[in-house]
Amino acid sequence: MDAGKILDDFRSGVITREQALERLNILPYEDIGFAKLDHHRQLRRGGVETVFCAGKTAEQVRAIFERFQAVGDNVLGTRATAEQAEYVRASMPQVQYDPASRLLTLVRGPKPQIGCVAVCTGGTSDLPVAEEAAGTAEFFGARVKRFYDVGIAGIHRLFACIDEIRTANAIVAIAGMEGALGGVIAGLVSVPVVAVPTSVGYGASFKGVAPLLTMLNSCAEGMSVVNIDNGFGAGYLAARINTLTEKGHPS
Amino acid sequence: MDAGKILDDFRSGVITREQALERLNILPYEDIGFAKLDHHRQLRRGGVETVFCAGKTAEQVRAIFERFQAVGDNVLGTRATAEQAEYVRASMPQVQYDPASRLLTLVRGPKPQIGCVAVCTGGTSDLPVAEEAAGTAEFFGARVKRFYDVGIAGIHRLFACIDEIRTANAIVAIAGMEGALGGVIAGLVSVPVVAVPTSVGYGASFKGVAPLLTMLNSCAEGMSVVNIDNGFGAGYLAARINTLTEKGHPS
Amino acid sequence: MDAGKILDDFRSGVITREQALERLNILPYEDIGFAKLDHHRQLRRGGVETVFCAGKTAEQVRAIFERFQAVGDNVLGTRATAEQAEYVRASMPQVQYDPASRLLTLVRGPKPQIGCVAVCTGGTSDLPVAEEAAGTAEFFGARVKRFYDVGIAGIHRLFACIDEIRTANAIVAIAGMEGALGGVIAGLVSVPVVAVPTSVGYGASFKGVAPLLTMLNSCAEGMSVVNIDNGFGAGYLAARINTLTEKGHPS
Amino acid sequence: MDAGKILDDFRSGVITREQALERLNILPYEDIGFAKLDHHRQLRRGGVETVFCAGKTAEQVRAIFERFQAVGDNVLGTRATAEQAEYVRASMPQVQYDPASRLLTLVRGPKPQIGCVAVCTGGTSDLPVAEEAAGTAEFFGARVKRFYDVGIAGIHRLFACIDEIRTANAIVAIAGMEGALGGVIAGLVSVPVVAVPTSVGYGASFKGVAPLLTMLNSCAEGMSVVNIDNGFGAGYLAARINTLTEKGHPS
Amino acid sequence: MDAGKILDDFRSGVITREQALERLNILPYEDIGFAKLDHHRQLRRGGVETVFCAGKTAEQVRAIFERFQAVGDNVLGTRATAEQAEYVRASMPQVQYDPASRLLTLVRGPKPQIGCVAVCTGGTSDLPVAEEAAGTAEFFGARVKRFYDVGIAGIHRLFACIDEIRTANAIVAIAGMEGALGGVIAGLVSVPVVAVPTSVGYGASFKGVAPLLTMLNSCAEGMSVVNIDNGFGAGYLAARINTLTEKGHPS
Amino acid sequence: MDAGKILDDFRSGVITREQALERLNILPYEDIGFAKLDHHRQLRRGGVETVFCAGKTAEQVRAIFERFQAVGDNVLGTRATAEQAEYVRASMPQVQYDPASRLLTLVRGPKPQIGCVAVCTGGTSDLPVAEEAAGTAEFFGARVKRFYDVGIAGIHRLFACIDEIRTANAIVAIAGMEGALGGVIAGLVSVPVVAVPTSVGYGASFKGVAPLLTMLNSCAEGMSVVNIDNGFGAGYLAARINTLTEKGHPS
Amino acid sequence: MDAGKILDDFRSGVITREQALERLNILPYEDIGFAKLDHHRQLRRGGVETVFCAGKTAEQVRAIFERFQAVGDNVLGTRATAEQAEYVRASMPQVQYDPASRLLTLVRGPKPQIGCVAVCTGGTSDLPVAEEAAGTAEFFGARVKRFYDVGIAGIHRLFACIDEIRTANAIVAIAGMEGALGGVIAGLVSVPVVAVPTSVGYGASFKGVAPLLTMLNSCAEGMSVVNIDNGFGAGYLAARINTLTEKGHPS
Amino acid sequence: MDAGKILDDFRSGVITREQALERLNILPYEDIGFAKLDHHRQLRRGGVETVFCAGKTAEQVRAIFERFQAVGDNVLGTRATAEQAEYVRASMPQVQYDPASRLLTLVRGPKPQIGCVAVCTGGTSDLPVAEEAAGTAEFFGARVKRFYDVGIAGIHRLFACIDEIRTANAIVAIAGMEGALGGVIAGLVSVPVVAVPTSVGYGASFKGVAPLLTMLNSCAEGMSVVNIDNGFGAGYLAARINTLTEKGHPS
Repeated sequence: MDAGKILDDFRSGVITREQALERLNILPYEDIGFAKLDHHRQLRRGGVETVFCAGKTAEQVRAIFERFQAVGDNVLGTRATAEQAEYVRASMPQVQYDPASRLLTLVRGPKPQIGCVAVCTGGTSDLPVAEEAAGTAEFFGARVKRFYDVGIAGIHRLFACIDEIRTANAIVAIAGMEGALGGVIAGLVSVPVVAVPTSVGYGASFKGVAPLLTMLNSCAEGMSVVNIDNGFGAGYLAARINTLTEKGHPS
Repeated sequence: MDAGKILDDFRSGVITREQALERLNILPYEDIGFAKLDHHRQLRRGGVETVFCAGKTAEQVRAIFERFQAVGDNVLGTRATAEQAEYVRASMPQVQYDPASRLLTLVRGPKPQIGCVAVCTGGTSDLPVAEEAAGTAEFFGARVKRFYDVGIAGIHRLFACIDEIRTANAIVAIAGMEGALGGVIAGLVSVPVVAVPTSVGYGASFKGVAPLLTMLNSCAEGMSVVNIDNGFGAGYLAARINTLTEKGHPS
Repeated sequence: MDAGKILDDFRSGVITREQALERLNILPYEDIGFAKLDHHRQLRRGGVETVFCAGKTAEQVRAIFERFQAVGDNVLGTRATAEQAEYVRASMPQVQYDPASRLLTLVRGPKPQIGCVAVCTGGTSDLPVAEEAAGTAEFFGARVKRFYDVGIAGIHRLFACIDEIRTANAIVAIAGMEGALGGVIAGLVSVPVVAVPTSVGYGASFKGVAPLLTMLNSCAEGMSVVNIDNGFGAGYLAARINTLTEKGHPS
Repeated sequence: MDAGKILDDFRSGVITREQALERLNILPYEDIGFAKLDHHRQLRRGGVETVFCAGKTAEQVRAIFERFQAVGDNVLGTRATAEQAEYVRASMPQVQYDPASRLLTLVRGPKPQIGCVAVCTGGTSDLPVAEEAAGTAEFFGARVKRFYDVGIAGIHRLFACIDEIRTANAIVAIAGMEGALGGVIAGLVSVPVVAVPTSVGYGASFKGVAPLLTMLNSCAEGMSVVNIDNGFGAGYLAARINTLTEKGHPS
Repeated sequence: MDAGKILDDFRSGVITREQALERLNILPYEDIGFAKLDHHRQLRRGGVETVFCAGKTAEQVRAIFERFQAVGDNVLGTRATAEQAEYVRASMPQVQYDPASRLLTLVRGPKPQIGCVAVCTGGTSDLPVAEEAAGTAEFFGARVKRFYDVGIAGIHRLFACIDEIRTANAIVAIAGMEGALGGVIAGLVSVPVVAVPTSVGYGASFKGVAPLLTMLNSCAEGMSVVNIDNGFGAGYLAARINTLTEKGHPS
Repeated sequence: MDAGKILDDFRSGVITREQALERLNILPYEDIGFAKLDHHRQLRRGGVETVFCAGKTAEQVRAIFERFQAVGDNVLGTRATAEQAEYVRASMPQVQYDPASRLLTLVRGPKPQIGCVAVCTGGTSDLPVAEEAAGTAEFFGARVKRFYDVGIAGIHRLFACIDEIRTANAIVAIAGMEGALGGVIAGLVSVPVVAVPTSVGYGASFKGVAPLLTMLNSCAEGMSVVNIDNGFGAGYLAARINTLTEKGHPS
Repeated sequence: MDAGKILDDFRSGVITREQALERLNILPYEDIGFAKLDHHRQLRRGGVETVFCAGKTAEQVRAIFERFQAVGDNVLGTRATAEQAEYVRASMPQVQYDPASRLLTLVRGPKPQIGCVAVCTGGTSDLPVAEEAAGTAEFFGARVKRFYDVGIAGIHRLFACIDEIRTANAIVAIAGMEGALGGVIAGLVSVPVVAVPTSVGYGASFKGVAPLLTMLNSCAEGMSVVNIDNGFGAGYLAARINTLTEKGHPS
Repeated sequence: MDAGKILDDFRSGVITREQALERLNILPYEDIGFAKLDHHRQLRRGGVETVFCAGKTAEQVRAIFERFQAVGDNVLGTRATAEQAEYVRASMPQVQYDPASRLLTLVRGPKPQIGCVAVCTGGTSDLPVAEEAAGTAEFFGARVKRFYDVGIAGIHRLFACIDEIRTANAIVAIAGMEGALGGVIAGLVSVPVVAVPTSVGYGASFKGVAPLLTMLNSCAEGMSVVNIDNGFGAGYLAARINTLTEKGHPS
């Protein structure tokens, strides 16, 4: 039901003036409002949906996957536990679960991956966040290259691969503890760097506050920050920039 | 001087084995390292330099502008005071100063501006940060559209212009106090949103901590955050995304 | 025993001057003070008592319920565990327990519910706090409408029900993460909004500090805030405003 | 222009189908959206507007007052400086300024004040915040009773007036330093208490954080909290509750 | 061995000049230093020792108790677990353990208790801290009166016993959540009040920070504060003031 | 007017039963309540009053001093500015002002000072707080000995005077920066130590937070803490303990 | 493979110009860069490697130990759990594990230990951190003397051994709670003091923040601070200073 | 007067047993304690004294300089204002003042400077702290090399001088904003790095908290941290390590 049909039905007498007004009244929220938003979400996601699984029961996660499956969407579940994954996969074996990234994915058809997103970490302990970022970027259509354990305590490791990192359209820089990786990379490249502080560390790292502040205060240009441990957010954003770079504005 | 020439000179006897080794030894840092970085900076900036004027004397700012002018770069000075501007312009009248954004600019030749960056603010008090973002984005080659005072306390103001905002390649969302603007916009668009918390507010805003936390915790996809009041950083990043979208990767 | 009787007994010689003085001395605290307060508590609660069960043993909770039952009060226990509930219900099967809200209730006779309190949440994870608020408001005599998962990341969901929300006499807005729900609602309605930050989130949400600050800094008029996860406090306050709106001042 | 007229004009041929669709398209935001909100704001404010003057120039404040005057609204400016007031009053002498509360008001016709809001403070230093709350409540139609300097360090002062405080429909409790006033009052009354922490104090008061936390943690029922020093917010909310109590829901 | 004996032995030829110097050399630390301190500790403690059991193994706690028993001291162990207590009591059955206060005590002979220390709590959840304070004060020779659950949310409960509280030489005021109890009591009495914030609460109580700040900011005279949950420290200090009041300075 | 007179007047017919009840009704707050508190305040203060001058106008301070003078009290004004002092002394030349401590005092007749309070500071910059503490303790009847600049960075300075410090009935230990003075002294003496953190320091002292935390965490027995820079509170409390030690409980 | 060999092979025709260039190309990062760093690391570590075991699987830890063993290095694993240790030692029984310090070490040949590092603690609960510091310093070639439980609450204990502490080339001062130990020692010695705050404590110690701030604010000269509980960092640094003192600069 | 002389005088009858005891009694504090400490301070400082001028009057600073001059010490005043300097130099023209570092120095005879301390900064705004560190290190006998503006945003600047930095015996790394400089340097060198966070920055740098946390969390070995802006402390410590390296332990 859209405004044009309401007008037509009204003029043709199928509906009365009162009925036309009533339908137009809910239109802004249901059709123009709601559907418009849906339209945009479809545009930018390419027919996929995401579910934040943390804090949901296995039953809830399965129900959500089933609903989205019914409408034909690809689905990305983040922060899924092994228990949630097992429960969902019992009835939907085509759903994939990756324990490292805790991503639960339902993908139909081949996934074309374009461009390049580089995912870099300061240490090996940042791997779960990094895999969440990488898996998310791949889910949203980006080719991903991983550069793990290239932290600044041994900065030669970073330099050994900086030229390859530079070929990416967007870079996700993940680091805990002092969190300086993002700033160092941003000073060496010309594409956007999405920095992710992680809760890796102890004592005065305050569960990620230290790297968060480090990243926010970086004077290297072209870097921005997402929440502590938010690999999903960084991967999504990097994939968006990657797509924009490869395909231009979706207007 | 590059490695190939060193090899050739060595084989032809122009230089000794010791000389060849010595030159190869400094190569990584002086030539490949240092010059490579310079090369990249030129690439990504298109012949411009930036100066953070806060905490510098007027003499220092002028000296820096003069040095960059000598090498033919465009120069962008941020957080310049009226005193610094007056002092610099006394000897370099071609330098422009904008009191609202506190930007001090030296631009030669016409500035082509492409694509679109949208700069949105929650209230009128966020204007200085917004102008810094807008002016920076323009300096780095973006066409900028301003949407000021569209905060969520009267969300209809935002809705009245959301379709126009959606046409931008990147959006800068600036807000103090509760700082919810970025999350609302990110939920309505499909391009990257760079959120800037501002120190506008009082009491429990803690000079920008409240909107900073709001923005970091947003569950809207596609948004990242820069430091409190960092209009420059947001403008630069949005301009980068804008350029990538319009022109693709600079490889 | 009241002051009038003391005066009479004194004049009639039943008690001496010393006895009269002694009795008058304790009157302000025992009779006028204590009882006066009790009288007020009865007035405002309508014969109900509340018990904060967290940190109490199952034995203590049962003893309190039994004492209040003996004096004929309705009783509301908050933050009760399943173990506490099971123990209490073993001897008092008429006590009800709701695992979602963790409310333990003893209610005699029909509960008339008047007016309307709207309980809104940003996400599904806020449900326990929301049910605590809703159950509390119902316990204190309010009709409650629930609007769950209407957070601002998909603001069309909120708009689809805003007109119904507006019919409430008071609104409880519950949100974790960025916590912007309350401010958006308060900008759209004309009745008091009681905002409840929740500890839902991770990283820089700091267990509810982020939404707490968001809510305190909202520039939307007509909103106030209670402690993190304090669904009870919000439900109680909303029910009070609901009662005042329906019945006027209890003087 | 409303939807009904569009339908009529469409059916009568005054506008084409395309024109009808185009007009309906902007309706949700300009008419239904925007005007609907306006309608609500009119309802809840009774034809008044508020301006947060802090951070605005005297010229901006005057321009806003003049604009609202033109449409016939009463106007309340908060946190106005003496300079702003003087500048506005130079051309609009009917505007009133109260230095204690820093409120700048433009009121036409008699202001009926109904019900009762009690404004209580812990100390004399809280007076500016208290006057802002009281003046705001009066502006929004509440009769206000002031109970200043009744802090808990000498709790007999509070008890001497608690019965009178109880007659109010809503109570604003303002306190700095330890900030316990709100909780003590809320334990003694049956109407909503809006607590306002103030930045009065030194050392570990951390500019109002200490009383803010005190108030958020109060276990007295029926109290909620607004931002530090936010007398306006508390006065507005108390006036709303007062109006609801006296007049019922504005539906 | 003391300096006088060294001098006598030196003069009488029992020890040589070198031996005398050597012994005098360690005297400042072992005798004058160490023993002097011991002497003072003996004076102020009356032959008792204290052990902070948290973080020690059961073996360590038992070893310490045995050592002190060997020298005839009374011993007070704080924060002892049931496991530690059971292990110590297996070989030292005369040691007493109180699960509520977690105090582990070894007392020989009758304990005379003089004067009066009042221990007050805001709620029943503060009981473990209160019992630690009370048990400590008793161990150090004070008669203790307990006033539990007299928090300010129902201030009449406090008033019902304030006159009895006033008879104490020192008062321990224990409260979590908003923590206002200490300030209210200090405003009503004339003896020192030692305030103890507790970690009882949730959300913005931040594990005791809220009541700690409340207590530090109280403008009631005669109150001081100890660490969160530090019942021992408060009980010890109150007992000291009690002893000073009853017996004067121990010079 | 007291309860006894009301009883007598009632029995003798001077007042009616209604008049007697009315007067008894206000008695708890005006006479028994208020006066009882006054009585206690008189007891513990010996006919003196205190005024926190910060944030008051010179006119207000003078008015308060004049009112207290009229009823014959000694008066202690704290945190008085030179301007306030000059204004008060213009009409009340007998008022004394001490710029170091910022104390403004009105004292009639000789001030007997008994016992001993030791006031110790870590550095010379703590002097203003120390003089406030010392002056307050003297005002409330304590003999005061000052031990300034005995901080732990050169701990021999403290040891040179520790025996004299031990003769005091109560010790005020004042320190900024690391704030360890209190704990060291408390480990060496047997009387109560009131620790005062000061805002002296820079960087990570956070305006007194560092020494505040140091003092709260001291494991030395017999120490408690007051607010940052609260010399008055410490001096008052030490004087109370001094009086209790010299004179016993004021019952 | 080094640059010299490449040059020789190139001149002698063993490799072509292209091959020479290719190998030189990776040399800056693999050989000159990487190996240069390695060379430095070898110099300062004397053929040892360190592994931060926390957050690694037992398999990962074993693999790293095996790799380093293969190249002949001594290996120091920190924060190893008993499970990790057991797993590693199953296949490498020559690896040693110390549960107190959680250090896992692989040492070949005799370990010469020179000079002296003093490791001091405030209390017995700081022992795990102290043993990590001591074991690390020993691993890196320092003779270590332990001075445990010499905290300032009983400062005579420290004085009894201060002369022996002074003989060390570097001192590690470890303390939780108030954390004053480092400042007191630094005021008494002339060599560098590395202070380690520990998370030992409760309440306002905030898991080590209190002693961290104490140490940062110390005005004793010659002290610096490492992260909370970072015994490894302090032991490593003290061992470095010890080696420099004994052997001079490694140039 | 020492213990040996007391023994001799006692045996020879020059002093009585009581006199001997009395003299021995003060010996630990006046002679062994106090003088021993003095002796150590002389040893480690080489006849110099330091004065923290901030918060002192010009008169106090001059008096301290005059007293130290009288005993022949070199004197170093830190954080001296121009006013203090001018006042001191009016009567002591031989005192030198350096506005950049705010150091006020009195030096007699030639200052031999040995070894090398490297002082590095991230940006030009860190210069005042850097000069304080450099001037302090020079005052305490170190040769100093300055490496300013080598921050990680353009890491090639650091690499261009890293080999020269490596020749120092100790390195002071000074940085504000993100503060990553210290960690990067520590990963590249083998000598101790003393990191100094500065208050340079804005927004989420929180006046130096961000770089402080960065530095504390660095996983680079061999680095420790001093207070925000504490150039003096870093310079003193680096000079100590430099002296130890050049001359060995001062025993």
